[in-house]
Amino acid sequence: MLNFELKNPTKILFGKGEISKISKEIPQDAKILMIYGGGSIKNNGVYDQVKDALKEHNLHEFGGVPANPEYEVLVKALQFIRENKITYLLAVGGGSVIDGVKFLSAAAKYEGEPWDILKRPVRTLEGEALPFATILTLPATGSEMNSGYVISRRETNEKLSSGGPGLFPQFSVLDPEVIRSIPKRQIANGIADAYTHVLEQYMTAPSSADLQERIAESILISLQETAPKVMTENFDYDAAGNFMWCCTMALNGLIQKGVITDWAVHAMGHELTAYYGIDHARTLAVIAPSHYRYNFDTKKEKLAQYAERVWKITDGNTEEKAEAAIRKMEEFFHSLEIQTKLSDYTEDYQKTAERVEKAFTERNWLGLGEHKNLTPQDAYKIVEMSY
Amino acid sequence: MLNFELKNPTKILFGKGEISKISKEIPQDAKILMIYGGGSIKNNGVYDQVKDALKEHNLHEFGGVPANPEYEVLVKALQFIRENKITYLLAVGGGSVIDGVKFLSAAAKYEGEPWDILKRPVRTLEGEALPFATILTLPATGSEMNSGYVISRRETNEKLSSGGPGLFPQFSVLDPEVIRSIPKRQIANGIADAYTHVLEQYMTAPSSADLQERIAESILISLQETAPKVMTENFDYDAAGNFMWCCTMALNGLIQKGVITDWAVHAMGHELTAYYGIDHARTLAVIAPSHYRYNFDTKKEKLAQYAERVWKITDGNTEEKAEAAIRKMEEFFHSLEIQTKLSDYTEDYQKTAERVEKAFTERNWLGLGEHKNLTPQDAYKIVEMSY
Repeated sequence: MLNFELKNPTKILFGKGEISKISKEIPQDAKILMIYGGGSIKNNGVYDQVKDALKEHNLHEFGGVPANPEYEVLVKALQFIRENKITYLLAVGGGSVIDGVKFLSAAAKYEGEPWDILKRPVRTLEGEALPFATILTLPATGSEMNSGYVISRRETNEKLSSGGPGLFPQFSVLDPEVIRSIPKRQIANGIADAYTHVLEQYMTAPSSADLQERIAESILISLQETAPKVMTENFDYDAAGNFMWCCTMALNGLIQKGVITDWAVHAMGHELTAYYGIDHARTLAVIAPSHYRYNFDTKKEKLAQYAERVWKITDGNTEEKAEAAIRKMEEFFHSLEIQTKLSDYTEDYQKTAERVEKAFTERNWLGLGEHKNLTPQDAYKIVEMSY
Repeated sequence: MLNFELKNPTKILFGKGEISKISKEIPQDAKILMIYGGGSIKNNGVYDQVKDALKEHNLHEFGGVPANPEYEVLVKALQFIRENKITYLLAVGGGSVIDGVKFLSAAAKYEGEPWDILKRPVRTLEGEALPFATILTLPATGSEMNSGYVISRRETNEKLSSGGPGLFPQFSVLDPEVIRSIPKRQIANGIADAYTHVLEQYMTAPSSADLQERIAESILISLQETAPKVMTENFDYDAAGNFMWCCTMALNGLIQKGVITDWAVHAMGHELTAYYGIDHARTLAVIAPSHYRYNFDTKKEKLAQYAERVWKITDGNTEEKAEAAIRKMEEFFHSLEIQTKLSDYTEDYQKTAERVEKAFTERNWLGLGEHKNLTPQDAYKIVEMSY
């Protein structure tokens, strides 16, 4: 069991109607900028609920933050924040909006060139960021209860991450009712994203952090059981609530404490999004099975444990259980109508492995994965296996 | 799934050697009072590690806080804090010392009669308490990562609880090495205490908070598997770490969110400690099986789920599984050399049910348990069943 530090000060307000409580959570004298995406919050009622809850506050708006938040849009918001002396940011949206707001929170008080926060990641410490909160409308990334974020820059085809202990939301509202109006494709993405977040912190060499592993397995099982209920047309509040809470718990820091983590699947997946615009979650479903097959010897014991505890597979030896587990994982993604081969998404995939190898080499990412020894050449082979 | 709020700002420093880091966590200009119990920290090296880590700080000491922290001792510490203008409290000990320090933290800035904080519980809000931190030397109560506490008053045979969002430790150090020197009897108590904390938040009518239930089950399974390893003479660091982390996770607030909780076992157990001085954890093991048998109809579905998921019992109908589960629970306590009948602890037990009924009635505790409808008369019957 590895040493760890854990601190997560984000306050969660979970459940139906909780948006109405946010006026008590934000200082009365705050100058708030509410930031949102493409406008779906105006159709599902969330926009009106926020406006109503904050009618006594000084509230400004900035809409139009796209999926995979782009630097070019965010610098415009940054300009607005500085010009209008905004003191509090409120992200209303999914992971893209929340990540964008984290970048803005970090950049607002940062005196250097904003892109440097990403280019040579600057950890934002407590007190260095503008206070912000989130109202989650699309469960997936877990960004509502952690201090990390990912930003894209179209002009350079880059997707880079940063964070720091100063970038936890002050509070996040999780109202499962928002799931009523989410398209099934995006719900499937959310499930696959959260599922892979757990895998990145679990599917490693054996750890001795027994409770953390069991909590990870609990999230996987709960996502599997909840998935068919939230993928039907009939809204089920409790299933929606479980789905939403699983997404948060998958990446709020808890299950990574005391264990080895990997994250190479994300590193490779981000490239596929940058090149082809494939949904983030779907890139993970493409890469994960190949990653586990390629690193089978390191991961087979944990794969077998996953087979036994999560999929109740009791037949076979370690290798057989481990192989069965990868197939079960693929079947689970397929049950969400998510394909697991790169060729399912683009015809222009033949040179992808070379592009990923080159990008990792240029960025000096020479040792990824759980043992920091996965080379750009390994990434080439894994991406090639995913064709 | 019930609405909930969750905020837990305590920073955890987990692992071997973490005590050496505390000087960075406490302000340099703090006037610290280190508070401890009977002196075991002078034998196991923790006292020296703390003194060494804080050698640049202004550090005072107050030792001698007994198990089930007594009001009479704590008021002396309170006097010392006020006279010496102490600004930071550091609890070094188990749940008794930590709970005592929470009371002191709340009372230090409270202008009324200190006992009123308990007599008519005053919730201590953020900013109302003296900052404090903990170095845990005895895993059991979970007090190192929550904001509640329990205090005893010998002269009135009372054991009362209080708390509030201002009473989270600023940080807590959890170094599994401390478990090397803990007597097996106290380790057994810690396991039983944490196990029962989980049961109080889990063994209720069915909830729809699937992930929370699975995390609760994870803690129960992990405690069961870790127990024999920490009860042997050979120190096993990883087993000690799992045990320690299970105790914290059992009562840091997470598993109670979105579910129904009970806590009647604790209410009855506290009386047995107040009358006979029986170790807290052992009173829970006495009351819990009788409580579940008495409330069998309400709890049988969850008992059956516990049988299936935690004990892998697949035979029988709901009632049979539920009954088997209670027997398994008793066997688990027995495996820790903890008896589960009141007559195993005292010969003077015959009038206990009447005393508990009278105490609850006088205190106006007319509706305990998960549905707030467990009367003092019900408590009479449950305690009588435990003879």
